[in-house]
Amino acid sequence: MNRICICLVFVLSLISPFSSYAQAAEKRYVLTSADGKVQTEKWDLSGNGWSVRKETLHGGKQEGIELITIDNGVMQIVIIPTRGMSIYEVRNKEMRLGWNSPVEGIVHPSFVDLDSRGGLGWLEGFNEWMVRCGLEFAGHPGTDEFVNNTGDKATMDLTLHGKIGNIPASEVEVIVDSEAPHRIRVRGIVYEKFFYGPKLKLIAEVSVVPGEDTFRIDDTVTNLGSSDQEFQLIYHTNFGAPLLGKGTKLHTAIKKIAPMNEHAGKSINSYATYEGPTKDFIEQVYLIEPLSNEDGMTGAVLQNAKGNRAASMYWSTKQLPYLTIWKNTAATEDGYVTGIEPATGYPYNRKVERAAGRVPKLAPGKMRRFTIDCGLHNGTSAVKTATEKIKTIQGKHKVKIQPHPPTLNNN
Amino acid sequence: MNRICICLVFVLSLISPFSSYAQAAEKRYVLTSADGKVQTEKWDLSGNGWSVRKETLHGGKQEGIELITIDNGVMQIVIIPTRGMSIYEVRNKEMRLGWNSPVEGIVHPSFVDLDSRGGLGWLEGFNEWMVRCGLEFAGHPGTDEFVNNTGDKATMDLTLHGKIGNIPASEVEVIVDSEAPHRIRVRGIVYEKFFYGPKLKLIAEVSVVPGEDTFRIDDTVTNLGSSDQEFQLIYHTNFGAPLLGKGTKLHTAIKKIAPMNEHAGKSINSYATYEGPTKDFIEQVYLIEPLSNEDGMTGAVLQNAKGNRAASMYWSTKQLPYLTIWKNTAATEDGYVTGIEPATGYPYNRKVERAAGRVPKLAPGKMRRFTIDCGLHNGTSAVKTATEKIKTIQGKHKVKIQPHPPTLNNN
Amino acid sequence: MNRICICLVFVLSLISPFSSYAQAAEKRYVLTSADGKVQTEKWDLSGNGWSVRKETLHGGKQEGIELITIDNGVMQIVIIPTRGMSIYEVRNKEMRLGWNSPVEGIVHPSFVDLDSRGGLGWLEGFNEWMVRCGLEFAGHPGTDEFVNNTGDKATMDLTLHGKIGNIPASEVEVIVDSEAPHRIRVRGIVYEKFFYGPKLKLIAEVSVVPGEDTFRIDDTVTNLGSSDQEFQLIYHTNFGAPLLGKGTKLHTAIKKIAPMNEHAGKSINSYATYEGPTKDFIEQVYLIEPLSNEDGMTGAVLQNAKGNRAASMYWSTKQLPYLTIWKNTAATEDGYVTGIEPATGYPYNRKVERAAGRVPKLAPGKMRRFTIDCGLHNGTSAVKTATEKIKTIQGKHKVKIQPHPPTLNNN
Repeated sequence: MNRICICLVFVLSLISPFSSYAQAAEKRYVLTSADGKVQTEKWDLSGNGWSVRKETLHGGKQEGIELITIDNGVMQIVIIPTRGMSIYEVRNKEMRLGWNSPVEGIVHPSFVDLDSRGGLGWLEGFNEWMVRCGLEFAGHPGTDEFVNNTGDKATMDLTLHGKIGNIPASEVEVIVDSEAPHRIRVRGIVYEKFFYGPKLKLIAEVSVVPGEDTFRIDDTVTNLGSSDQEFQLIYHTNFGAPLLGKGTKLHTAIKKIAPMNEHAGKSINSYATYEGPTKDFIEQVYLIEPLSNEDGMTGAVLQNAKGNRAASMYWSTKQLPYLTIWKNTAATEDGYVTGIEPATGYPYNRKVERAAGRVPKLAPGKMRRFTIDCGLHNGTSAVKTATEKIKTIQGKHKVKIQPHPPTLNNN
Repeated sequence: MNRICICLVFVLSLISPFSSYAQAAEKRYVLTSADGKVQTEKWDLSGNGWSVRKETLHGGKQEGIELITIDNGVMQIVIIPTRGMSIYEVRNKEMRLGWNSPVEGIVHPSFVDLDSRGGLGWLEGFNEWMVRCGLEFAGHPGTDEFVNNTGDKATMDLTLHGKIGNIPASEVEVIVDSEAPHRIRVRGIVYEKFFYGPKLKLIAEVSVVPGEDTFRIDDTVTNLGSSDQEFQLIYHTNFGAPLLGKGTKLHTAIKKIAPMNEHAGKSINSYATYEGPTKDFIEQVYLIEPLSNEDGMTGAVLQNAKGNRAASMYWSTKQLPYLTIWKNTAATEDGYVTGIEPATGYPYNRKVERAAGRVPKLAPGKMRRFTIDCGLHNGTSAVKTATEKIKTIQGKHKVKIQPHPPTLNNN
Repeated sequence: MNRICICLVFVLSLISPFSSYAQAAEKRYVLTSADGKVQTEKWDLSGNGWSVRKETLHGGKQEGIELITIDNGVMQIVIIPTRGMSIYEVRNKEMRLGWNSPVEGIVHPSFVDLDSRGGLGWLEGFNEWMVRCGLEFAGHPGTDEFVNNTGDKATMDLTLHGKIGNIPASEVEVIVDSEAPHRIRVRGIVYEKFFYGPKLKLIAEVSVVPGEDTFRIDDTVTNLGSSDQEFQLIYHTNFGAPLLGKGTKLHTAIKKIAPMNEHAGKSINSYATYEGPTKDFIEQVYLIEPLSNEDGMTGAVLQNAKGNRAASMYWSTKQLPYLTIWKNTAATEDGYVTGIEPATGYPYNRKVERAAGRVPKLAPGKMRRFTIDCGLHNGTSAVKTATEKIKTIQGKHKVKIQPHPPTLNNN
């Protein structure tokens, strides 16, 4: 039985900004609509063993932050519409996808100045399990030199990991498929559109089937402008203790791996294993060209030392051809964390990425889709199944290990 | 009959911050008062065939934006107190003053970082029909070198078009004249006051008489500091389709016209006619010294190709001696728009404007007033009357066309 | 009898973020808790001759600002949790600690861009009686070169007076001691914690005993990171008319005094007396090494010309070894004010302060405490008692006056 707060429920019309997704058999609930002037402080909906709940946070820098929690009976997925549809955490009885960042609370974008600290302001709000980096640019801050739409040379100081993670969703809705297996979807639209700038539209969806231990991230990025538009997109997922710990292992299917700098190069042979929290640890970043199976799929599995807990992600290398592994096994107080980051490129400054041919363009009106299937695996057997899937992709293919960082073309 | 939400109505005392305007016969309603701690989520007032309505927007970057709509029975004027008393749009049955910017929604200033994108952050919120640029500075971003109050040489990185369009009004009131013709006024105070900075006070008023097809912008800027204070003010009005279209014509009374750069110089002979939406169009900007009649008045009329719709503006060249025409007939998705911008100067960086003698100063305690009368003209006859008025001002005076941009003194 | 808004009152659990302060006999009321998701638009509590009241401001740039006013029956202390627990003003029947800044209203941090105006954006919100400058850095803007945690040389553009005054408190509570004299405390936690940045926690407390004419600022700063952390802290207290006026005198106990620049050097002999409001006055800043008594205590007293009103501050030179006097007796409209600023250093850029050995470090987990006792003195006799206390500290110790500014090491 569904219990619905009638007063807060609106049915989207056919000319919804989400209309490209329209389906025959589903129920839609609009929680936020800049167009429709809808906003809800609290909201909830529940069904047979599942619920979706919206709340608004208060106090400190998190004043006004909206959270949506999907509970599918097995796990809870916490989404932050106010921070670009990031996923704060995913919990089940045994595990938590997420980490303990030194950033306190969930920071409202109005308290984040991306330009601060030399373009590193993004770090002042960084504590999600998954934050999208992009869309106009992602990766390291610094001055990008490029040819602009009018054919002139231009420069712009890029800020770390772009804007999309600090733009509130303009439209948010909850959709429940009417037919079995009654998938529950939380979908938001985040616009990165400016005058004399990009005109990009992200439709970000997180969905789950009641009772299952997997969930799906399913996004599209569309160029609403009249010219070709560069974009970058990094799915910055972050894992802390207890899944991450001394002896935790990373399983990936690799064509080629290289360190991001000489420091990381020194430890490249142990890229797949983790240390415990280490004071004054200096981050190590590895750049992977994933290997995919005949369906074009690749994946990554992070398993604990005991081998009885793991998290997995699977995606298409046609959609996200690059993977970055960020090892930051620093002291607990400073943020003990590793990043697994499927992306359209690597996290160098866009200038470097463009020179390397890793900055895709979207033609006017064109859309690209990005799907990541995520799972939580509990028990030795389930973990083994997940890691075997990666091993099967790797097969007998040899991993090409490049001990030194790539030569950068950043002129 | 007036219907008034009594609980939200406050009568301003004689020592109101608006007091320089005090009049005997009027009714005043305070909607916002930082001093009086008044704020209203919703409010409305209606009279004989007219109404004033306040609402607060939600969702995405427009969370918390306040809008006031005056409906005089003939047209609706939508004012944004939260964005410096800008006018979002003016609509009647036949026309709309406004444009379709790629900027989504009405952006709350807390989501605008003026410093971003190399000082072009202002563009991230730019979608109004009329936004004031200023007050300490307006025009292009870049480093200004100047002598500060202490007599020292100083530099400051100016951001595009200044701050006033992203400062919320501290005081907002609705005034209805008690005597015929019962003019309805929405008036706001926007302070651009900082310690060791300018101490400028803008009183911004939009008013209309019930049933008429004209409205008035009537502002004052006062220097509340103890020293002379430079200021700049551009009334950046912006027109899109359908008033703007292939064959749309601009009528202005001109002493002299020059292009802002060589690119615009190439098309200066067609400065007064418009193309349809054009992919990859590069903006053309023209700098006009308007001609005024014996009363010191000049004007501009924008009419559609058919000649049956027009918008007009009239103002005093003593108040606003310069006029900039911004032609940006780009693709619809990128913002198809033209700007008609009466101002105290041109939109070069303040350094250039100062060297050219176009940056006025206000002595301590002094005020300057700026009045623009705007009209919507429907039908061939009404359009003709409006354009004839401009032609009469031009008379037999020859337009001096300067094909090359002015030589800039920017040292 | 206490009157308590029951619905808004929450009792902190033993694992409160404030827990280091836990005491047996007190009543606690949580007004804001980011952790506990508590927020209150209005709140009040009153006892025998005293009250504490919380309100939320609206309108203009002060939209959403929270204020807490403690009235101890004799004076009212107005605290701004939203602006880092600054104290806006302290009033009693005869006096006001505070000043009339040209900054209008109490500015919400989301309207302050610290990077603007060349790193002077802090001034756009500056109008409190007491604002803390810090914690990662305080003092003048400019590029700091330093060695970062990873051992690399790094630079960062510091902004004036740091971030802490523009960070909203995450946790705010009111505590009333159960035992006589029933001290009333307002306590807030402000986190200056970022990923790859400082992990500092300020617990800021203002307290007062019912009926007394003194109050206490009692803070701790804790390093929650795993490495040593530099910090700076300036208690920037500001006094305007009528306490400040022509002939107002400053009493301090001084080991050594120097001007901050040559301009201030010219007037060093009159550092202790004030002029009336003076158009085009250029600020004079004096750097004092305070003398302390055998208990390590020093103080400052500001008295009016008549000698019948004074404000006093006493503190330990072990906690705050430096004192800056900022004379800015400018025109009333521009901000007629003097600053008395006990601090961990002087307000030079951190680069200068570090080279001079005035940037303290906190080891991991370590805390430092800062206590300032403030008094309002009414009547010739009370003023004399306060000034005598300073004279007693000075005793026969000679003041070393250094006529020229210190030589700076800023490489």
